[in-house]
Amino acid sequence: MTDARDIALTYARQNRDRFLADLKDVIAIPSISTSDEYKPEVLRAALWMADRLRGLGMDNVEVMPTGGHPVVYGEWLKNTGAPTVLVYGHYDVQPPDPLDLWDTSPFEPVARGHHLFGRGSSDMKGQVIATFSAIESALKTGRMPVNVKFMIEGEEEIGSENLGKFIKTNAKKLKADICLNADAGMIGADYPTITYGLRGLAYMELRVYGPNKDLHSGLFGGTVHNPAQALVELVAGMHDKNGRVTLPGFYKKVRRLTEDERKAFKRLPTNAKFYLEQTGVPKLWGEPEYIPSERVGGRPTLEVNGLLSGWTGEGSKTVLPAYAMAKISCRLVPDQTPEETFKQMQAYLKAKAPRDIRWELISLHDSGTAITDLKSAGVKAMADGLHAVWGTRPLFRREGGSIGAVVQLQEYAGVESVLTGFGLPEDNIHSPNECLHLPTWYKGIDALIHFLFNMGK
Amino acid sequence: MTDARDIALTYARQNRDRFLADLKDVIAIPSISTSDEYKPEVLRAALWMADRLRGLGMDNVEVMPTGGHPVVYGEWLKNTGAPTVLVYGHYDVQPPDPLDLWDTSPFEPVARGHHLFGRGSSDMKGQVIATFSAIESALKTGRMPVNVKFMIEGEEEIGSENLGKFIKTNAKKLKADICLNADAGMIGADYPTITYGLRGLAYMELRVYGPNKDLHSGLFGGTVHNPAQALVELVAGMHDKNGRVTLPGFYKKVRRLTEDERKAFKRLPTNAKFYLEQTGVPKLWGEPEYIPSERVGGRPTLEVNGLLSGWTGEGSKTVLPAYAMAKISCRLVPDQTPEETFKQMQAYLKAKAPRDIRWELISLHDSGTAITDLKSAGVKAMADGLHAVWGTRPLFRREGGSIGAVVQLQEYAGVESVLTGFGLPEDNIHSPNECLHLPTWYKGIDALIHFLFNMGK
Repeated sequence: MTDARDIALTYARQNRDRFLADLKDVIAIPSISTSDEYKPEVLRAALWMADRLRGLGMDNVEVMPTGGHPVVYGEWLKNTGAPTVLVYGHYDVQPPDPLDLWDTSPFEPVARGHHLFGRGSSDMKGQVIATFSAIESALKTGRMPVNVKFMIEGEEEIGSENLGKFIKTNAKKLKADICLNADAGMIGADYPTITYGLRGLAYMELRVYGPNKDLHSGLFGGTVHNPAQALVELVAGMHDKNGRVTLPGFYKKVRRLTEDERKAFKRLPTNAKFYLEQTGVPKLWGEPEYIPSERVGGRPTLEVNGLLSGWTGEGSKTVLPAYAMAKISCRLVPDQTPEETFKQMQAYLKAKAPRDIRWELISLHDSGTAITDLKSAGVKAMADGLHAVWGTRPLFRREGGSIGAVVQLQEYAGVESVLTGFGLPEDNIHSPNECLHLPTWYKGIDALIHFLFNMGK
Repeated sequence: MTDARDIALTYARQNRDRFLADLKDVIAIPSISTSDEYKPEVLRAALWMADRLRGLGMDNVEVMPTGGHPVVYGEWLKNTGAPTVLVYGHYDVQPPDPLDLWDTSPFEPVARGHHLFGRGSSDMKGQVIATFSAIESALKTGRMPVNVKFMIEGEEEIGSENLGKFIKTNAKKLKADICLNADAGMIGADYPTITYGLRGLAYMELRVYGPNKDLHSGLFGGTVHNPAQALVELVAGMHDKNGRVTLPGFYKKVRRLTEDERKAFKRLPTNAKFYLEQTGVPKLWGEPEYIPSERVGGRPTLEVNGLLSGWTGEGSKTVLPAYAMAKISCRLVPDQTPEETFKQMQAYLKAKAPRDIRWELISLHDSGTAITDLKSAGVKAMADGLHAVWGTRPLFRREGGSIGAVVQLQEYAGVESVLTGFGLPEDNIHSPNECLHLPTWYKGIDALIHFLFNMGK
């Protein structure tokens, strides 16, 4: 088996230029999912993916309709008895605006020095092509160690709204031992990274109603509870002095970090200095008994995402507003659920809201938590693969954000994900001059080849 | 002297139709000060006022330029030794929008039943013509009991921005024993009203800065003090549980209400039921040891006029905002000052603001407090005049709002105002179908004639 692996790695090195040409080819399609205007281009990218999967030798390649942009499916299941890897990817990209800040045209990819510039080069067409390239290297050299399936969506940049239903409907078809998701990036070029946990989300809107119309603050100020004031009083009370969330029962189901996890968090280069630099704040904030990366990855939080009431234009208007609104979201960790969190918020408001105002709580968006067993075969195969290429043990992190596909695969198809990727923090994803660091990308393809062979052992 | 008064009152009754024709004439000029487009019409109204003052027999009539719309001045100072009354008025009006809600055209005044409809009929062209009519009645019947001066501005509806400077510059010219200001309205057709106090205003904007850009709440939530959260914590702390303002020293200079004042407040029909009906709130709020009308007229307050931070559109955006803003204003009573209040807010913020955010406090608008001695000759003359016509003692109130002219006359020219008026709460001022209740207006002209003769006693 070692021989087959080396042959595949050699094939990959010999075909790097062609892999890059492939990537340039697909970056040139402006598959911007956020804009209806680009719908034909999004479809063109889906068809490109399907063609490429057929070229790889995948069977049963399909462009499968959803309520929005289609999902591209393909499979190669000829290695009876070997484990099956489901490869996740997305072929849609963010809009390139503001266009005038790009040094080169976003959809005319250009390699300069060590970088390839273009929208989607890092997020995530580059990562998708890395998985294609690794699988091609194993398949074309005659010894494919695992079975593979592909699920490549076109709505990641708009919240994967139709993916949940797709996974539910096709749960059997998507069954696999592990999902490979290369959309998670790495902490730095020298820090291969495996993301094994994601926070969930309960996003709510709190509306507070006072008088039946905006009042003159001079003629009525002092007689009614100003709803903006009532709102700030309620929201201020959602944290105690130590930055802990006060919703009743909020921490009850929070899984405590293990000693191994806490060690892994401590190894991360995202230390206090990193967060100070990234945010520019004079002083960090949060639960004092946890380090910042633990607070982001392993602890739940409550954030005010928006506030609106009364007069917000220039200058002064002496209005006593009729209405005030806050957008509030909780980031959740296992084993919290968005549904329970919403109920805890309702209980908090029922207990604390004064009787002189009316309030309403609306659930806007939910997402469950996800966590992958650090001792699973998939995580081990990926860790060893990254180690083999970088010569260093990867970092393990739990991330603060949500990725819909990961949660939904776990929830609806029972497939855990191993999250990695070869995008770097400095790649300008979602920003002008998005780029891909090619030396890291080539190492990534090698690491994915190792992963396939490690899985197949 | 009783004869002269009766002759003047008879003259007024005989000339009611002409007074009404005068009023219709000036309502037809759309002197909307808020819109540049109407500048020629605003000037036309000023010239109309100047002509009318000349017709009344005023001397030294001038249309005096300011930084904005002009002030119309005129004087009659031929009763040597008698007191001088400065008559305040404004010839500008609010825009008539929304036009489609008017039953008749706003600038084509129509009398229907007991009402005259038209923009400015109540606020305050009607009140200005009432003062003209009263003075004409005394002057043309040969026995004018006082001297008079007029100061009629064109910027009341846009905040009297240039009036302060005008009064400062012309303080000597405006010197008088009392200012008659008929812009304050009455509580109801059966409740002749004298307003003897106005609250001041200190309007501020509090800005709280967190991270140097909007952050992803998943990737950074839990590491920095969210500025929207810090803002709500600071603003929530500006009141204690009993609705009292916590700014250090806020109540130190507040003049306590006298027993006479508290009796006058209790007589007002604006009781708790009134405030519940006007505001539609389930329960009133405020300092429990004061009744609502005292809280509005005689006590200082702090209001949140606006809130803005982060995502305020539809749906969810998981932003951890870089910035949060609150507009906050304090209504002040004698002997508080806007300058001291601003310093108290700064002191509060210095003491309470956490070190992990930055903040900035901006003063947006200031207005001093005003109060007229209830025992002054002007108040007594007006009270007796109203009593003579309505057959009931007037109500005395302190109002929650500010009127620039009153404060500035007191501050820059040392002239106290006696505030009254014959506009009713149901006149729809600033709204479609503004109207004037003619029976009340005619009574008002009579009461003003009494006032002139009472002053001259």
